[in-house]
Amino acid sequence: MRIVDQTEIPSRLVYKDLNTVEEVFEAIQKLQVRGAPAIGIAAAYGLYLGLRNLGEENQEDFISKAHHYAEYLSQARPTAVNLVWALNRILNDLSKLNVGVRISPESVLEKAQYLHQDDIERCNKIGEHGSQLIEDGMTILTHCNTGLLATTGIGTALGIIYTARKRKKKVTVLVDETRPLLQGARLTMWELHEAGIPATLITDGMAAYALQKQKVDMVIVGADRIAKNGDVANKIGTYNLAVNCWYHRVPFYVAAPLSSFDFLIDSGDQIPIEERNPQEITDVLGKTSITVKGANCWNPAFDVTPANLIEAIITEGGIYRQPLVKTLNKLNKLAYQN
Amino acid sequence: MRIVDQTEIPSRLVYKDLNTVEEVFEAIQKLQVRGAPAIGIAAAYGLYLGLRNLGEENQEDFISKAHHYAEYLSQARPTAVNLVWALNRILNDLSKLNVGVRISPESVLEKAQYLHQDDIERCNKIGEHGSQLIEDGMTILTHCNTGLLATTGIGTALGIIYTARKRKKKVTVLVDETRPLLQGARLTMWELHEAGIPATLITDGMAAYALQKQKVDMVIVGADRIAKNGDVANKIGTYNLAVNCWYHRVPFYVAAPLSSFDFLIDSGDQIPIEERNPQEITDVLGKTSITVKGANCWNPAFDVTPANLIEAIITEGGIYRQPLVKTLNKLNKLAYQN
Repeated sequence: MRIVDQTEIPSRLVYKDLNTVEEVFEAIQKLQVRGAPAIGIAAAYGLYLGLRNLGEENQEDFISKAHHYAEYLSQARPTAVNLVWALNRILNDLSKLNVGVRISPESVLEKAQYLHQDDIERCNKIGEHGSQLIEDGMTILTHCNTGLLATTGIGTALGIIYTARKRKKKVTVLVDETRPLLQGARLTMWELHEAGIPATLITDGMAAYALQKQKVDMVIVGADRIAKNGDVANKIGTYNLAVNCWYHRVPFYVAAPLSSFDFLIDSGDQIPIEERNPQEITDVLGKTSITVKGANCWNPAFDVTPANLIEAIITEGGIYRQPLVKTLNKLNKLAYQN
Repeated sequence: MRIVDQTEIPSRLVYKDLNTVEEVFEAIQKLQVRGAPAIGIAAAYGLYLGLRNLGEENQEDFISKAHHYAEYLSQARPTAVNLVWALNRILNDLSKLNVGVRISPESVLEKAQYLHQDDIERCNKIGEHGSQLIEDGMTILTHCNTGLLATTGIGTALGIIYTARKRKKKVTVLVDETRPLLQGARLTMWELHEAGIPATLITDGMAAYALQKQKVDMVIVGADRIAKNGDVANKIGTYNLAVNCWYHRVPFYVAAPLSSFDFLIDSGDQIPIEERNPQEITDVLGKTSITVKGANCWNPAFDVTPANLIEAIITEGGIYRQPLVKTLNKLNKLAYQN
C-alpha cells in the first residue's frame, strides 16, 4: 500500500510504502495519512495487510484475527467515524458470507478495493451536488484539508470546488491555515496551487474579519463524524467559523459522505474528541518553538458544530437542508437499507 | 534608551540600546518594541533622540525639526493612536510655552519622562478598576499581549489580571496564541510564567470551543485605537473572539488608557488597518515555512470590533459600560479639559 506522506507536504512529495498493519496504524496516528474518508480506506487496506499472510486452514481463527486487527486499527484515531465504518463494513460483509464459502485474505482485499472505488464515486457525487450551489465568481472560505489528500477521490468540500471549476465556474478560495497542524496552509494551499485555483491564505483568527470585510459567499468544510441530529465534529476551528458565519449571515455548508454519519449517537455531545500532544501547539511542525518551556496547553483536535448553525449537509445522496434532524432520520433509514 | 527586544522572547531576554531616532523608528516597525502604550512612550523618547544634538540657537529650526521627526515617527505604524497621541502631546506642550522661554532637547526629554511616568500610573489605575470585575477562581481568556511588555507599566488587560492576583484572587488564564506573530504564545505565556499565574495556551481557532466547553468567565483584551462611538481596533483575531463571546454570552471587556481613544473619528470604519508582510504568515517567526512558495496571503494586523459587542471599556478613569457612545461623549469632554 502506497501513500503520500502528508506530513512532508508542501516541502516534499514523498511516497511511503506501508507493508504491515502496524505501519498503517502508525501512519494514521501520525497523520501521514489523514482526512476522515482517506483513513477509512487506509484502515481497510491495513486490515488486509494484517491478514494476508494467514493460511486459510482455520476460518474461526481468521475471523477472530480480522476482528482483532479491526479493533486495533479503529483505535488509531477516535473521532472520525469512517475508520470504524470501513472496518465494520468489511467484518459485516464477511459475516454475511454463506456457510461453506471460504474466507481468504483476498476476500478482504476485494472488499477494501470495493470501498476504495466507492469512496472515489461518493466524492464525485458530492462534487456534483455541491457544485450546484456555486455560482460563477464566488468566493468560498474553507478550513483544514478536504481534497485529494483527505479522501481517495477528489475530496468533499474541496471536491465541490474542483467540480465547480470543471464546470467552468470561476471561484476564489480563502484558506484558513488551520492551526495547530496547518492542514490548510500546507495541504489545501498545495492542492489549490497544483490545480491552478486562486487561493488566499489567512490565519484562523482572520476569518471573522474576512467575513466582515471581504465578499465571502459561503463557507464549506468537511466532517469527521455527524450525529443523528446533524451535529458535526470536524477539525478544531470549525465551530468558531460556524458561529461567525451565523453572525455574518454567510451560509455554512458541511460536505461529507454517508460514511461520516454515525446514526448510533443522538447528538454531538457523544462524539469522542481526540486530544493530541501539546507539542503540536508549542512546536510548529515540530520545528519552531513558540512559547516558554513546559507551557500548559489544551489541544483538542476537533470541535462540534451544532446542527442549527449548518445551512445544509452535502452528501453523495444530495443536499440536506434544515431541519436536519428530519432529513437525517430519512437518511438513517436509507443507510440501513444499504 | 534601552528596550527589551520582544522579537527574541521567549527564547532569550535581549536588551537593546537605541541611540537615534532612526533606530527607534525601526524598532517600532519591526515590533522589537510593541503594544500601543509602549510604542507611544518609545516614540516620545525617540523624538528626544532626534533632537538631542541640536543647538538651541534657532528656536524656529528646533520646532520645525521636532515636527519633522514627530511626523516621521508617527508613520512607523498606522493603527495604534497612542503613537500620534504621545508625539502630539509633546508638540502641543512645546507650542504652549511662553514666548521667551527657550526650548531645549531637555524640555522634550522631560515631557517624554512625564508621559512615561504617566503611562505607569494609568496602567495601575486600569488594574485597580478592572480587578474589581474579577472574582476569586475565575477563568479569563485573553488575546495578544497587553502586559509589562506592551506598556511601560503593568499593562492593560494583563495588568488587571496582575492586580487581581495581588489582591489575592486566584485566576486562571486561557491564552490565544495570536497568529501570525504569536504574541500570546511568546509574550503573554512568558509574562504569566514569570508571574507564576496558571495559564493554558490554545490556538486562536480553539477559543470558540473553549467558550462552549470550558468555564470561561470573561474575555479581556487591549486596544490599539478606540473610535468616538466605542468601536475598537485591536490585534487581528479580537473581532473573532468578540463575536464568539456575544454568541456564548460571555462578557467581552476592552482595557485601554485614554491615550488609545481617538475622539477625532466617529467610528471604526475610519481606523487605518495596517497590512503587514505576508511572510509573517507563510514563515512562522521567520523560521518555519508552512505553505507553498509564492502563496497569496492577506495579512491585516488588526481588526475592528463594533461597540455593541463590548460589555465595557476599562480605563484609568473607570469602567464605561453600554451605551458606550453616551459615556464616551462624556470622556471626550474630559479629554479636552486635560
